[in-house]
Amino acid sequence: MIIPFHVREMLRRIKLRYDAEKTPQQLAPSDDDFTATRPSRKASPETVARFWERLKPRASEADQLQIADPATVQVAEIYGANIENFIGTVKLPVGIIGPLRLNGMNANGDFHVPLATTEAALVASYGRGAYAATQSGGISTAVLYEGVLRTPAFVFESLLQAGQFVDWVVSNIDMLKAAAESTTRHGELVSLEPFIDTNVVFLICRYTTGDAAGQNMVTIATDALCRAIADDCPIPIENWYIEGNFSGDKKASALGLVTGRGRKVSASVILSAKIVEKTLGTTVDAMLAYGQVANLGAHLSGQLGAQAHYANGLAAFYIATGQDAACVAESAMGVTRMESRGEDIFCSVTLPNILVGSVGGGTGLPSQTAALNILGLKGNGHGTALAEVAAATCLCGEISIVAAIAAGHFTRAHESLARHR
Amino acid sequence: MIIPFHVREMLRRIKLRYDAEKTPQQLAPSDDDFTATRPSRKASPETVARFWERLKPRASEADQLQIADPATVQVAEIYGANIENFIGTVKLPVGIIGPLRLNGMNANGDFHVPLATTEAALVASYGRGAYAATQSGGISTAVLYEGVLRTPAFVFESLLQAGQFVDWVVSNIDMLKAAAESTTRHGELVSLEPFIDTNVVFLICRYTTGDAAGQNMVTIATDALCRAIADDCPIPIENWYIEGNFSGDKKASALGLVTGRGRKVSASVILSAKIVEKTLGTTVDAMLAYGQVANLGAHLSGQLGAQAHYANGLAAFYIATGQDAACVAESAMGVTRMESRGEDIFCSVTLPNILVGSVGGGTGLPSQTAALNILGLKGNGHGTALAEVAAATCLCGEISIVAAIAAGHFTRAHESLARHR
Amino acid sequence: MIIPFHVREMLRRIKLRYDAEKTPQQLAPSDDDFTATRPSRKASPETVARFWERLKPRASEADQLQIADPATVQVAEIYGANIENFIGTVKLPVGIIGPLRLNGMNANGDFHVPLATTEAALVASYGRGAYAATQSGGISTAVLYEGVLRTPAFVFESLLQAGQFVDWVVSNIDMLKAAAESTTRHGELVSLEPFIDTNVVFLICRYTTGDAAGQNMVTIATDALCRAIADDCPIPIENWYIEGNFSGDKKASALGLVTGRGRKVSASVILSAKIVEKTLGTTVDAMLAYGQVANLGAHLSGQLGAQAHYANGLAAFYIATGQDAACVAESAMGVTRMESRGEDIFCSVTLPNILVGSVGGGTGLPSQTAALNILGLKGNGHGTALAEVAAATCLCGEISIVAAIAAGHFTRAHESLARHR
Amino acid sequence: MIIPFHVREMLRRIKLRYDAEKTPQQLAPSDDDFTATRPSRKASPETVARFWERLKPRASEADQLQIADPATVQVAEIYGANIENFIGTVKLPVGIIGPLRLNGMNANGDFHVPLATTEAALVASYGRGAYAATQSGGISTAVLYEGVLRTPAFVFESLLQAGQFVDWVVSNIDMLKAAAESTTRHGELVSLEPFIDTNVVFLICRYTTGDAAGQNMVTIATDALCRAIADDCPIPIENWYIEGNFSGDKKASALGLVTGRGRKVSASVILSAKIVEKTLGTTVDAMLAYGQVANLGAHLSGQLGAQAHYANGLAAFYIATGQDAACVAESAMGVTRMESRGEDIFCSVTLPNILVGSVGGGTGLPSQTAALNILGLKGNGHGTALAEVAAATCLCGEISIVAAIAAGHFTRAHESLARHR
Repeated sequence: MIIPFHVREMLRRIKLRYDAEKTPQQLAPSDDDFTATRPSRKASPETVARFWERLKPRASEADQLQIADPATVQVAEIYGANIENFIGTVKLPVGIIGPLRLNGMNANGDFHVPLATTEAALVASYGRGAYAATQSGGISTAVLYEGVLRTPAFVFESLLQAGQFVDWVVSNIDMLKAAAESTTRHGELVSLEPFIDTNVVFLICRYTTGDAAGQNMVTIATDALCRAIADDCPIPIENWYIEGNFSGDKKASALGLVTGRGRKVSASVILSAKIVEKTLGTTVDAMLAYGQVANLGAHLSGQLGAQAHYANGLAAFYIATGQDAACVAESAMGVTRMESRGEDIFCSVTLPNILVGSVGGGTGLPSQTAALNILGLKGNGHGTALAEVAAATCLCGEISIVAAIAAGHFTRAHESLARHR
Repeated sequence: MIIPFHVREMLRRIKLRYDAEKTPQQLAPSDDDFTATRPSRKASPETVARFWERLKPRASEADQLQIADPATVQVAEIYGANIENFIGTVKLPVGIIGPLRLNGMNANGDFHVPLATTEAALVASYGRGAYAATQSGGISTAVLYEGVLRTPAFVFESLLQAGQFVDWVVSNIDMLKAAAESTTRHGELVSLEPFIDTNVVFLICRYTTGDAAGQNMVTIATDALCRAIADDCPIPIENWYIEGNFSGDKKASALGLVTGRGRKVSASVILSAKIVEKTLGTTVDAMLAYGQVANLGAHLSGQLGAQAHYANGLAAFYIATGQDAACVAESAMGVTRMESRGEDIFCSVTLPNILVGSVGGGTGLPSQTAALNILGLKGNGHGTALAEVAAATCLCGEISIVAAIAAGHFTRAHESLARHR
Repeated sequence: MIIPFHVREMLRRIKLRYDAEKTPQQLAPSDDDFTATRPSRKASPETVARFWERLKPRASEADQLQIADPATVQVAEIYGANIENFIGTVKLPVGIIGPLRLNGMNANGDFHVPLATTEAALVASYGRGAYAATQSGGISTAVLYEGVLRTPAFVFESLLQAGQFVDWVVSNIDMLKAAAESTTRHGELVSLEPFIDTNVVFLICRYTTGDAAGQNMVTIATDALCRAIADDCPIPIENWYIEGNFSGDKKASALGLVTGRGRKVSASVILSAKIVEKTLGTTVDAMLAYGQVANLGAHLSGQLGAQAHYANGLAAFYIATGQDAACVAESAMGVTRMESRGEDIFCSVTLPNILVGSVGGGTGLPSQTAALNILGLKGNGHGTALAEVAAATCLCGEISIVAAIAAGHFTRAHESLARHR
Repeated sequence: MIIPFHVREMLRRIKLRYDAEKTPQQLAPSDDDFTATRPSRKASPETVARFWERLKPRASEADQLQIADPATVQVAEIYGANIENFIGTVKLPVGIIGPLRLNGMNANGDFHVPLATTEAALVASYGRGAYAATQSGGISTAVLYEGVLRTPAFVFESLLQAGQFVDWVVSNIDMLKAAAESTTRHGELVSLEPFIDTNVVFLICRYTTGDAAGQNMVTIATDALCRAIADDCPIPIENWYIEGNFSGDKKASALGLVTGRGRKVSASVILSAKIVEKTLGTTVDAMLAYGQVANLGAHLSGQLGAQAHYANGLAAFYIATGQDAACVAESAMGVTRMESRGEDIFCSVTLPNILVGSVGGGTGLPSQTAALNILGLKGNGHGTALAEVAAATCLCGEISIVAAIAAGHFTRAHESLARHR
């Protein structure tokens, strides 16, 4: 049978649910009545209660108390600035790792890093990596590059107008830069590169964003830039869009890997043979041998870059510190390197797309602020340091997971920590 | 000057922080003393308090109360099953969208979907998409495919042994399948495909995982499979690893796009011209015109698939319902299509890598359970329905964002909702 | 100036050619008369002469003699089976490397490999690699996998019909396989995997193709398969296409890397430290050190796989032996590995998409037949051996180029060999 | 059986050739004697004859005459500048398409384009596309961008030195530019962008190369730049390499797609509904409907960009006109767009990496010069025009193949033209 087994097996399972009469009806549009939700942009104890009335047929009073607990409802207004149709909060457990020593351009000293996750073994694993790194004198870090992208698109009748448009943009760049920067105190337009595909022109706008992650800031600035173009440009524009789906916003893309988006950070450490053995329970040679296979796997499976996985640490760090968890999709890219240095092992990560802020977004919410305070990195002046902590945390994870797989401990750790639920 | 401006600007900023004497010292390893954390696998009010003692120099009493609030500390043990070094919880605001009508193979009826996010405008935007879809009769969905991958790697002396090994595996497949499945009640090994690179053999193992997301389940099953090989296989194995970094676990990869990982779900709806105009404030033609540009942007920036962004909805859904937020890195891939159907518009998404469970992971935690109860999808029998809701939610987001950009409202929405923080 | 210099420089150059009045006219469609060419499917001295009459205003008599030389024109009919509108032949210089020792599953013995190229230094470089490999006892090779893909697409009204269609295909697979195979003596349909995106179903058809490269064979077989579906399938098909642009035919794609297309071949050799020093003029350590950087570069630039470059050797080999040179676009992918083995170095390549045949295509043309005879691999029974020679040739190139760059000789070689033209 | 059928089938075939005793021996290194070839850098009738002596055991006198025909041997010296170990020439049939009307910034007028291929139906198909385009008033083209890349890599002890190095490079950029440009009359270094990964710095050097393809030119210029760095830079460099395997040289890479390499060219045309019907035998709607599916296939299979296939036309054009056929690997990328324009269809291609020259490489060889003369584009001043012809040719192919698949004629064309061999 040349049809793969798993396809046939899937089909078999689907057919168990399939009824020749009912299934087609079930998949078809239905014009049954429904009562639309009245959206609520401001949150208050009353709006919360109102929403729960809708949810009650399915959810219980007890459910309501878990999400809309009194302490949460009391400060509903605070949360309301970050969300619509607010019904309460979900509580994610936070664990800490550390002290994690950073020898960074921006982050310097010993940190305890809060990580929010529901995956057992994750904190223990990152903690082990942190311990090995700190024993080795700490992790060197630097923000190498910065630049959140927005790429508006302009559509013209033909290539000719597209070319004339590029010429106009280049001639009016100072005015356009001023228009963009008029919307923000902290953002700066540091590069604008036109990219033509026949009659469509994308403008690759790169901004620095101060201490904020800056996604919103660059959208507003770019909107102003586009409106300035729309107002003044004599070449007839057929359509323009604030984003041509080119900037790599919240998705993994080759562009993000190649040009960076957000902050690009390198973090590295040399672990001595002794620490690898005592703390990580394996050897430098075993880690390097696995590194070769893991690198091969990365190539063969078409990863963007090569890593064990940054997503675990990044998601846990982003959630705990009030960052945008959706950005994990674009941030969890980069290259992990493990190389021999005499008897020891050099371990490094470079992530080109870290999107974090010490201000803005969810950083002002109560528990998230508290998490940033644990790091001492809340508020102005800490954006780059925060990015360095994020990268260093990823490096801890890479060290621990590579060591665990090399040593054959990987499954055991998950089994003993996660199976008891 | 042929060096790009933003590179020079970055350098200028770095040099502001650079001191020829101090910076090198700052980046170098330091052997200052430090006190290691005693890891804690079980959580109790005492362990929580103990950890906060460490954090106090930087964090305040008030910070502690935000994270280690009394209600949380009281149930520390419950959280302890999902995390180590527990210090409390971070609270993420939850908003709801709906009723969202699903006409699915597995999810059927009108749902209110809880979304946890700190990005203002997100819930409003998804809610708008849900309203348009429900007005149109609802979203058709189906899980098309299933299969969480693990890809252990086996290293041999040379190609010859690698080939002999593949022959042995194929001859012993029934025993190996039994070994893998002996570890799990719900998991099934539905495909095993060997993949050779000279002397290295990856075994692409694909499992169905019942109602669980199943990452842990497949690791444990594959470990048993590998140990059965290691015990019985007469061909000398130089090294083997539970994961050859090939399965695409928690990172975007071409493999995940091509072969799927987790559940593959399609969701689609036809929106009438009238609904597009009244509810979305734009026209079918405007959406299709932007769709062409967005598709071009996806190709030119090297996305894996093409989408506006699934990550927003996925992350918010995963966090609210106790899924593994790190999986957003691999789940936020796929293809969004918008096509003309007469006067109307056909909108569909297909996500090949949705990793959700109605049991296991963080689904048993108190507020996450409550969120699943809002959906009526907690516990056995709801894994596939949950995946369909996740995909349908992504479709709502795509509809709304494409409409907003097509109409030129995108920035305004973010500005009015997000700027007031 | 935030516009990159090279963009402004490009614009400056374009503007030198730009005339506000004339350029727009020049770029606009023109309805000037023209005389269409009468296409010619058969070639003869007369058709050749007729075409040259058209070319004469620009081309000279001397030009005609270079392309339509008497020896070529005399056998015009032979060439005519492979081309339309035949005007003669272009002559590419051929050099040989070897003896290249192959210890292959299919190719065994010492070969001289003909390479057709106009890039000076290429043959010398591959020859050096072949010498080092043969001194080391030769290159082990094996065809690991086989399967030319065609992926017809079927469009339905909705997901429901798409699912029913898949069920029908699986139920009728034997009939469909028979239909496909009825068109070919040598081709075999060895896998058919349906792939759904909402209402579109791609059928991933994988064929073995005997000794031919088989692109044509699989198209014809798949057409028969599709027509059998169109004739018999009761589910209403809105449209179907012989190729859904999914198979990776003649372009680099992740699919090709992950699943293979054509023949997948590994070739490897261990070079002793002494041979690296004497023949390649560098050291094992230097090659490994460069290998680390080259691997990093491959990841960071988003290559499909990792290699120095296979394209040089593949193009030269394909052209010399009558293969389809356009297939270089998909064949020139894969992974090169260089690893330490004690004091020595293990070098391997795996190419998943080699498309070669010892019959069919251009292999029957006079000089191409002669080139295959140099290898002793013309005609039936030699398809897999030919693929192994192709991979081994690529390995020779990788060895030589890595050694040259590691040693700092790379530029010098090109300078001394190529600059004298 | 969960092992896929085609894997088992492959294994079965391999085992037919497998002998437990002989096969291992056959795959092992062999120290049998061999006689090395004395490499020959200059070609003459004598060296040609000497090489054929080696080839004779396998090749016949007749084979020799096909490759080393008297006319070729007579001018052996001319070929010798482009190859080593010269043994004669391989003859590829050339067909022409045209007149192809170009309304280009650089190429203007009606051209006959020579294409060298052994794939029957290719020339007929491209000719059909050219006819439709010319009937429609011709193809608008422009070179949008230019820049051959070389990316040398410099390795340092740590991040600190890497950063100091970047600072030094930026401070000394004028000297470095002068060093690079001292080696070439036509090349210009138009951008240098440093790219750091922890302790490794890649310098992305972008050159314009006059009328040459320029691969050699940029290697030599970059070598001079690197040597200037090595001589003068006070920061200790551990290793440096002329190419860090980052530039995308002769392989498909995301970098090439995103930043371009070689010349970036757009070509577009609007075909009227009538011409689509009369000349292409299909309808605008049918082409657009297939275009949607083809675009979906491109996304799902992980292509770099989206196209039917450029490789056929590019390879045939490169070979006929003396370009480097290996560059097809990187050139055959880009995006094809087909969009509705009222009743008509807009068709465009953009290829970011066309590598062609009107001077240098193989352009000076006798028959290749003749092919360039057919175009009237031999010698100085024609590099950009040649790139525009290449892109326009690709557009002709896209039009024809999309129309053929949309109409269901694709297989028939190949069957009738290619099966008769």
